[in-house]
Amino acid sequence: MFVGERKLETASLHLIDFDHDSLNEVVGATLGQCLHHLPSPTVTWVNVSGVHDVALIEALGQGFGLHPMTCEDIANTSQRPKWDEFPNYGFVAMKMLEVDETAQQVKIEHVSLILGDTWVLSFLEDEGDVFESVRARIRSASGRVRGHGADFLAFCLMDAVVDHYFLAVERIGDRIEMFDDHVLNDPGQVEIQEIHRFKRGLLALRRAVWPMREVVAAIAKSESDLIRTDSRVFWRDLYDHTVQVIDMVETSRDTLASLHDTYLSSLSNRMNEVMKTLTIISTIFIPLTFIAGVYGMNFQYMPELTWRMGYFVVLAVMLVIALLLVVWFRRRGWL
Amino acid sequence: MFVGERKLETASLHLIDFDHDSLNEVVGATLGQCLHHLPSPTVTWVNVSGVHDVALIEALGQGFGLHPMTCEDIANTSQRPKWDEFPNYGFVAMKMLEVDETAQQVKIEHVSLILGDTWVLSFLEDEGDVFESVRARIRSASGRVRGHGADFLAFCLMDAVVDHYFLAVERIGDRIEMFDDHVLNDPGQVEIQEIHRFKRGLLALRRAVWPMREVVAAIAKSESDLIRTDSRVFWRDLYDHTVQVIDMVETSRDTLASLHDTYLSSLSNRMNEVMKTLTIISTIFIPLTFIAGVYGMNFQYMPELTWRMGYFVVLAVMLVIALLLVVWFRRRGWL
Amino acid sequence: MFVGERKLETASLHLIDFDHDSLNEVVGATLGQCLHHLPSPTVTWVNVSGVHDVALIEALGQGFGLHPMTCEDIANTSQRPKWDEFPNYGFVAMKMLEVDETAQQVKIEHVSLILGDTWVLSFLEDEGDVFESVRARIRSASGRVRGHGADFLAFCLMDAVVDHYFLAVERIGDRIEMFDDHVLNDPGQVEIQEIHRFKRGLLALRRAVWPMREVVAAIAKSESDLIRTDSRVFWRDLYDHTVQVIDMVETSRDTLASLHDTYLSSLSNRMNEVMKTLTIISTIFIPLTFIAGVYGMNFQYMPELTWRMGYFVVLAVMLVIALLLVVWFRRRGWL
Amino acid sequence: MFVGERKLETASLHLIDFDHDSLNEVVGATLGQCLHHLPSPTVTWVNVSGVHDVALIEALGQGFGLHPMTCEDIANTSQRPKWDEFPNYGFVAMKMLEVDETAQQVKIEHVSLILGDTWVLSFLEDEGDVFESVRARIRSASGRVRGHGADFLAFCLMDAVVDHYFLAVERIGDRIEMFDDHVLNDPGQVEIQEIHRFKRGLLALRRAVWPMREVVAAIAKSESDLIRTDSRVFWRDLYDHTVQVIDMVETSRDTLASLHDTYLSSLSNRMNEVMKTLTIISTIFIPLTFIAGVYGMNFQYMPELTWRMGYFVVLAVMLVIALLLVVWFRRRGWL
Amino acid sequence: MFVGERKLETASLHLIDFDHDSLNEVVGATLGQCLHHLPSPTVTWVNVSGVHDVALIEALGQGFGLHPMTCEDIANTSQRPKWDEFPNYGFVAMKMLEVDETAQQVKIEHVSLILGDTWVLSFLEDEGDVFESVRARIRSASGRVRGHGADFLAFCLMDAVVDHYFLAVERIGDRIEMFDDHVLNDPGQVEIQEIHRFKRGLLALRRAVWPMREVVAAIAKSESDLIRTDSRVFWRDLYDHTVQVIDMVETSRDTLASLHDTYLSSLSNRMNEVMKTLTIISTIFIPLTFIAGVYGMNFQYMPELTWRMGYFVVLAVMLVIALLLVVWFRRRGWL
Repeated sequence: MFVGERKLETASLHLIDFDHDSLNEVVGATLGQCLHHLPSPTVTWVNVSGVHDVALIEALGQGFGLHPMTCEDIANTSQRPKWDEFPNYGFVAMKMLEVDETAQQVKIEHVSLILGDTWVLSFLEDEGDVFESVRARIRSASGRVRGHGADFLAFCLMDAVVDHYFLAVERIGDRIEMFDDHVLNDPGQVEIQEIHRFKRGLLALRRAVWPMREVVAAIAKSESDLIRTDSRVFWRDLYDHTVQVIDMVETSRDTLASLHDTYLSSLSNRMNEVMKTLTIISTIFIPLTFIAGVYGMNFQYMPELTWRMGYFVVLAVMLVIALLLVVWFRRRGWL
Repeated sequence: MFVGERKLETASLHLIDFDHDSLNEVVGATLGQCLHHLPSPTVTWVNVSGVHDVALIEALGQGFGLHPMTCEDIANTSQRPKWDEFPNYGFVAMKMLEVDETAQQVKIEHVSLILGDTWVLSFLEDEGDVFESVRARIRSASGRVRGHGADFLAFCLMDAVVDHYFLAVERIGDRIEMFDDHVLNDPGQVEIQEIHRFKRGLLALRRAVWPMREVVAAIAKSESDLIRTDSRVFWRDLYDHTVQVIDMVETSRDTLASLHDTYLSSLSNRMNEVMKTLTIISTIFIPLTFIAGVYGMNFQYMPELTWRMGYFVVLAVMLVIALLLVVWFRRRGWL
Repeated sequence: MFVGERKLETASLHLIDFDHDSLNEVVGATLGQCLHHLPSPTVTWVNVSGVHDVALIEALGQGFGLHPMTCEDIANTSQRPKWDEFPNYGFVAMKMLEVDETAQQVKIEHVSLILGDTWVLSFLEDEGDVFESVRARIRSASGRVRGHGADFLAFCLMDAVVDHYFLAVERIGDRIEMFDDHVLNDPGQVEIQEIHRFKRGLLALRRAVWPMREVVAAIAKSESDLIRTDSRVFWRDLYDHTVQVIDMVETSRDTLASLHDTYLSSLSNRMNEVMKTLTIISTIFIPLTFIAGVYGMNFQYMPELTWRMGYFVVLAVMLVIALLLVVWFRRRGWL
Repeated sequence: MFVGERKLETASLHLIDFDHDSLNEVVGATLGQCLHHLPSPTVTWVNVSGVHDVALIEALGQGFGLHPMTCEDIANTSQRPKWDEFPNYGFVAMKMLEVDETAQQVKIEHVSLILGDTWVLSFLEDEGDVFESVRARIRSASGRVRGHGADFLAFCLMDAVVDHYFLAVERIGDRIEMFDDHVLNDPGQVEIQEIHRFKRGLLALRRAVWPMREVVAAIAKSESDLIRTDSRVFWRDLYDHTVQVIDMVETSRDTLASLHDTYLSSLSNRMNEVMKTLTIISTIFIPLTFIAGVYGMNFQYMPELTWRMGYFVVLAVMLVIALLLVVWFRRRGWL
Repeated sequence: MFVGERKLETASLHLIDFDHDSLNEVVGATLGQCLHHLPSPTVTWVNVSGVHDVALIEALGQGFGLHPMTCEDIANTSQRPKWDEFPNYGFVAMKMLEVDETAQQVKIEHVSLILGDTWVLSFLEDEGDVFESVRARIRSASGRVRGHGADFLAFCLMDAVVDHYFLAVERIGDRIEMFDDHVLNDPGQVEIQEIHRFKRGLLALRRAVWPMREVVAAIAKSESDLIRTDSRVFWRDLYDHTVQVIDMVETSRDTLASLHDTYLSSLSNRMNEVMKTLTIISTIFIPLTFIAGVYGMNFQYMPELTWRMGYFVVLAVMLVIALLLVVWFRRRGWL
């Protein structure tokens, strides 16, 4: 269900340098180009696709003055979401989540973000399009992002990740809703394994979102100079969003649990129905068949067999027995 | 089960301006009329029905000096309940809940409230009558609301919303009570899907009430000038009410869980009953039918068949077997 | 299960005024008599039976200087337990619980207490005898209550309520203990609905006791002048008692849950037993009956039928089959 | 399962007075003897067996200067574990637990401890040997206890009680381990009621140990002069022990829960096995028996009966049907 | 499942003394050799294999100035993980965990660590290779460990232990993943006891890791001089790792719980399938067999038997009944 093995052996850099008036974009930039823009007061954003190129990450680390442990955390794709403050930058580890159309498959990607005073580094495992919307907004020169500093850009990038959580939880939620209809109306056609898959998807979401909430809260409350006072309102808003995702995940989990109980109950119910049918048919016909068997015996001396009305008396007795049993079942509420 | 798609394309404004002595009410007011009353010391309440009219909300936002993010939160109907303090106003997001007669359907509506020093804005998704009771109290010139300020009006509006929670939880509670009787007295007629629907209703209530508690607590403890000291006692009372709703929701959930267990147990019990009946009948008659079958075989040489008393001996043997089995079942407590 | 509708339309006042040396008791007192004793340094206790007499409560409220919201809380019988401090008095809302002999019915009553400097007001929904033990202690002139102030009287009244919780939880506990024996020794005779009733009773207790704990803790820590320093030790003791009730309720709940699991398991076990019996009998006799059926066919040419030993060979074959099946069942551990 | 009714009507005192060099032990001491040793700087330990002798406890209370509520707490055998500090002494209430060999029976005893500056009072419900190990260490003149003060003696007594918890939890743990083997290897022989008894035993342990942890933590952090600074390390160690007992109890509970689930699953599994056997046999033979029945009918005109090969054709048809059904069962994975 | 009995009667010491430039390693060192290196500013690491050699541990304790309770904690292999600060050293108790290939067996080992200013003592129950990787890094003269002090060495040793947790949880996780496939695709072949074993393994991990988190957090926050400021970043990193292990354990537990539910559901489902097959076959053939039985009776006067078409009419009636039953099953969705 989870896919964690894709690796880009050679990473590629995507450089965007902008302020309110100017914009400079280089796809497939070199490290030198990136460092060239660093001292300027414009916002410098370098996006790195492919975190398995250890040499490049170390070179970037030296160029941007990163602690060796930060470089390790960038490359460690099983790192939990966290926020680390260093004297000259802040480090954010996050998880990107993508759920496919049928909510059966969850793709988890490790995303790192480094926020300096006038620069932002972002690291993706893969060439993804999660930040494409942010790039579009920068290019269009409209929107708030061009007029704000590096911290607002970092906020936009994290916001883009959290927006993906919404997408994921909504997709799963929609499938659960469909599943709900199924269980209530046609439990016979339900594949119970689906519930297990949804649960695993929600589990993956939880593992990503719960620590993300801590991360955003820590940033919103951080006293670091990197986070400008007037952009705190945005972080608080992002915090609200992560709480809302958690809320939705928990509600989906509760709904799923209730659905599972309902499914099991209706299964039990149907089993009861089946067993009752079997029992009624068996209980009525087994004694009758026994009587027929008795008069099918070949003893030479069986007085009833020679009676003129014997056959009809036996048929009548059978009928009476059957009717009595039916009445008895009625009384017990089985019919 | 949830309905979230109704939209009023064009919003309508309902203006009420009052103090202890005067009352001014305009249905379908213009923005200009609303802003005209703003500077006066009287309490100005503008109720907006329809939050999807983005243009109007932005115009209102500019007129009343609202932050752009507040305007976004008003229009975002999936916003969680929250309390945000701004320098010149406070923002409350809430959820209105309505449960239909049979407790099968829950309607959720996003309600926003903005509390200024002498004015209150309220936003509904739809033309609803939730605030009609407050309007009636204002018009009647009696009651506390005319003599108090804008914060007391805001309290009344929130109180009206919380009163709807009571209604909702009581309606679900009553249905659960009815359901309870059913399960205990006539489990065969129970529709287990009901439990799932109740659970979803209670889940929706929880999602609305738990954050509402935080909101009310935050307002009660707020040090903002908007909340007058002498009206704090009312907020504390409202807090008590939300806690009570939570209490009722949790109790209903626990009752429901216990009911579900009871239902499953009685289902198992009935299954046991059914299987025991089948087993007793089968176990008694299957061996007897076998014996009858044996003497129904057509072998030319079967000595018993020619015995004078053969038939009666076999019948007696069958009777003895049947009686022994009945005794055995008695001993095992099955009869 | 819960009874909440009894109302006394006309309330009656019971006045007791005492100090260490004197005692004044008036059954069916007038409001005037009550207020007459108020200014004296003696402890004045007015017990009001019947909280639905709104006029009387308002009159009392004015006489004793109560806030309008306190009067509302007294009359609101669904008010949660709470402790509210006002400048001149403290307000306690509690729940009285009575469980009938068979632990099937729980009666919940709203009890309010108002503690002034030298006076105590208590409000019952009904004419009950919960405070009779306190009255007896006052009348007997012995015991601590005569020598202490109003706060100790309030403690005694609350202690009497908590003592009723002990009674309730013990009564339910005893029934669960009996039930326990039943489940372990004779699960066939168990009525599973009992468990549901016990659970509801414990749920009612929890709803009453958990907030009661908060109330008592708040009073014990209160810095109000109403609570004398030397009586704090009694409130702490009362706190211990409420914690102990909670402990007992939770233990009963856990025991009940374990009992329910055990019951279900033994049900499954019995079902297994039943099914095994059916399967063994059926599996042995169905093939034999088939063989008998084969030789009961009326084909003109069936060579076996004419064999001299045919009948006995078939009987022997049947015996062998039956024995083989018995051996097979033994091997599988079914016999 | 719990035994709480044993009472010693007449209590007996056991006095030990010691310091590093001297030792004075009186079995069946009088109150006077005990008080005689009180003022001396040696450690005076009085153990009281039998807490139902109210007169004696009151006399002791007066002699040692105990608060009346302490005396009540000593006699109240349902008192929860707690630590109360008074100006001149500290009061500890504890629960002693004994589990019998088969872990079926749990004996709970109320133990109280009073720690003065140079004296310790201990109260047992019964004449027990829980403190015998401590006495032995005092008598042997070796070990730390002779050289330390009263607080170290109190620590030793509490340690002896906690050691009994270890014994109890280990005994239950061992039985669960045995039970585990049973469930995994021979679920048919398992008595499910055992699980219920283990759960009740662990519940009793929890009720005793959880508050005990609070008690020990409170003493370790207490700023009272009664607890010497250099003995705090022992209290911290005792705290570690209680946490470890809790840990073991919780692990046992989790193991038990998992075992119960496994048991139920294997029960379901076996039921499936049983039902499959029944279904396979029935489904193969019921149609065959029907065919045999058809040709056992006595109609005068049944053409097949006169065919020369009729019998063999029918046998062949039966064989084919049986084989087809076997193939079908194989395909479905039932065989 | 757990192995706790291995003991090395005679312990062996492994001494490594190093600084940035020099390295001194003695396998099977004497206590004297160890103490000889103690005063030097180089880092002295003594690893003791075998904690049951009480005499040696006491001798070490005296040589290195350990508190008697520390010596007890080293030898007590059931000691919970903890961090104790003493004036001249810090004591860490940990659990080593090893899971075998099939994740069926968990080996738990008690590991103690003592951190002095320039020396580290480590204690293993057994001759293990858990610290071999650290030794290799020291010997290779590369890596950070040679250049740092004793606290960094202690960090490396604890890190090696936590790395084993990752291994353990990953091994169990992989087996659960395999198990998952089994349950979803071929539930008939699943051994439910596996789930119980995984749960016990995860329980053992939890018991080791949860308190380990506290330990690492306490060290990271410790104000002791033993922990240098510049090595705190490593402890924080270790803390992240323990949290991650906990995360993985909890996720595995949730997955396991969901798997168990899915397994039970699919078991119920299959049972339903089996019962439906039995019921359909029985319900169709039992009435037909009865009819055949009736016409197999030997009454002398049974008019139908003499009818020319009697046989064929009966066959036709049987066919009609069978078809009607098939239609009825179709309607109920059983076919």
